[in-house]
Amino acid sequence: MLASLPTTPAHAEASADARLLERAKGLFEPIPTAPPQLPGNVSTPEKVELGKMLFFEPRLSASWFISCNSCHNLATAGVDLQPASIGHGWNRGGRNAPTVLNSVFNFAQFWDGRAKDLMEQAQGPVQAAVEMNSKPADVVAFLNAVPEYGVRFSKVFPDDKEPVSFKNMARAIEVYEATLITPNARFDKFLRGDLAALTGREKTGLDLFMDKGCSACHNGINLGGNSYQPFGVMAKPGAEILPEGDPGRFQVTKTATDEYVFKVPTLRNIVLTPPYFHSGKVWDVEQAVAVMGSSQLGATLSGDEIAAIADFLDSLNGDMPKTDLPILPAIASGGPAPHLRPALPEMRPRE
Amino acid sequence: MLASLPTTPAHAEASADARLLERAKGLFEPIPTAPPQLPGNVSTPEKVELGKMLFFEPRLSASWFISCNSCHNLATAGVDLQPASIGHGWNRGGRNAPTVLNSVFNFAQFWDGRAKDLMEQAQGPVQAAVEMNSKPADVVAFLNAVPEYGVRFSKVFPDDKEPVSFKNMARAIEVYEATLITPNARFDKFLRGDLAALTGREKTGLDLFMDKGCSACHNGINLGGNSYQPFGVMAKPGAEILPEGDPGRFQVTKTATDEYVFKVPTLRNIVLTPPYFHSGKVWDVEQAVAVMGSSQLGATLSGDEIAAIADFLDSLNGDMPKTDLPILPAIASGGPAPHLRPALPEMRPRE
Repeated sequence: MLASLPTTPAHAEASADARLLERAKGLFEPIPTAPPQLPGNVSTPEKVELGKMLFFEPRLSASWFISCNSCHNLATAGVDLQPASIGHGWNRGGRNAPTVLNSVFNFAQFWDGRAKDLMEQAQGPVQAAVEMNSKPADVVAFLNAVPEYGVRFSKVFPDDKEPVSFKNMARAIEVYEATLITPNARFDKFLRGDLAALTGREKTGLDLFMDKGCSACHNGINLGGNSYQPFGVMAKPGAEILPEGDPGRFQVTKTATDEYVFKVPTLRNIVLTPPYFHSGKVWDVEQAVAVMGSSQLGATLSGDEIAAIADFLDSLNGDMPKTDLPILPAIASGGPAPHLRPALPEMRPRE
Repeated sequence: MLASLPTTPAHAEASADARLLERAKGLFEPIPTAPPQLPGNVSTPEKVELGKMLFFEPRLSASWFISCNSCHNLATAGVDLQPASIGHGWNRGGRNAPTVLNSVFNFAQFWDGRAKDLMEQAQGPVQAAVEMNSKPADVVAFLNAVPEYGVRFSKVFPDDKEPVSFKNMARAIEVYEATLITPNARFDKFLRGDLAALTGREKTGLDLFMDKGCSACHNGINLGGNSYQPFGVMAKPGAEILPEGDPGRFQVTKTATDEYVFKVPTLRNIVLTPPYFHSGKVWDVEQAVAVMGSSQLGATLSGDEIAAIADFLDSLNGDMPKTDLPILPAIASGGPAPHLRPALPEMRPRE
């Protein structure tokens, strides 16, 4: 009896955990603890600081009221918790604002991937009529009217003939946004070998996440953000969730097979970033899991399965970046021409 | 010759500086380096932290888009740099948003003094239709739906039967706002005896500021914020600056002598907080000084005098509070009833 010990339940569990870990390591990758370097856009502390200032700078918008942080609020996991963002004139954007957190790890930006990187992305909302509604020339004129920005751009881009430019604004913002990563999620600790970092329920959820096929699209470092997929591959969700008027990536490629194709969103910090999908119409994470099951996998997940997967998603919350609010510099005395002052259109709510 | 030295210019200057300091000390007071204690609202680190979270909490507004910090932006000296604030539905408030910085030292709040303290003040914008447009009951329901807020309110208000309340929200915000002070302005260093803290020009400006009569109203710790005065006591400024439709404190007291009477605003950090006056129509600090000269003092100040006074105002910029952006807690899974979700009215700009 002493010579041949039976496999105890504890042994069995440890070995099941080890197998789960091995399987997971083949599909996922932990968030690194240091921000990645960007090809062609070297990070320096001064560039990061300038980028942070610009990220929080409402005067990049026509109204002087809206900054990057308005919709990608770092106090609320890099989102605005809106179905679609409120922007200039209280207009709403067409799609749910994706989180800026870990967005550097996405293989393209926007729901339809129309920007290849964050530098390209950052130039969009500043100009979009329903977002910040500004113009590159006005942004540059504003920046040039602020002596401290002139000094900072010159230091950060010393080799440029005109350091203050719309492109350099975007370069600095990109480098800052690359620092907005959330390492040390419990799932990442698990991936690094800490088998006790997940609860039993979460391990069950992870198992289901891979068994049911969620990880076919939600994989890699961001559990998503690395492929395009048709929304409704098995069954189309209702028009509330998948509005007919938004054909997704088709708008970019004009290719029929790209109709209703979207970038797979990251699931990092997903429970903190409702509402869900590009339409932002689903508030409850369990409902979102159920919709994914039926529309993407053709599977009716049981309530228990859904709850376990949602528990696993809880383990994807990482450490939020620490943010000292920047102090934004003043416009020079005498200031810019009045057309740079907030030109507020006469807008009133429909009664 | 050696026995009786003539008074050298340096001596004369030092003695003039000392006289200037003595005169100034009779009128002004430096900002303390530590926040003041509030009568009836004890400050604790936990209450300050909770107040900070609520100050940055957009979900206190009906839209979930607007927080205290939207209009009292700590990145831009506690203001929004707008003539009048943009609020719910892109409506604009009736008056320029005063800075939250050092507001604890004002003897009453709002331009018309209708709130006796910051706790009373904080309850206004949350409910104002053109600001955050919320209701106390909705705020309380939201706070109760966030487990972490429940825990924090209970810790901060342990003796309350219902720790989560609209009043306690305001109490916490008040205690946080009392920390938003800007000590160590160069003028304060001067007041504390450092005669070299001001430049010669700034000393000339300070001298004029007292000689011309500015300090008759702009005195005390906040150089203002401690009296009501009629705007246009000597000569009414144009309707652009003093719109007829806003009779100021008259709206509060219904007393004829309070027509076009306003609280004298603080001049702390004034060069960082344009545009000026309750109407927010003047962007240039020198123009604002000129308007004050003619409307309040009946004096036509020369260009040199105005410039020197503006130079003195530059010395009123203090150390900005350091702000770690709070991480706001998530709503419990299952969440509040949908009516707490952003109920966005259908609003569109007038074409």
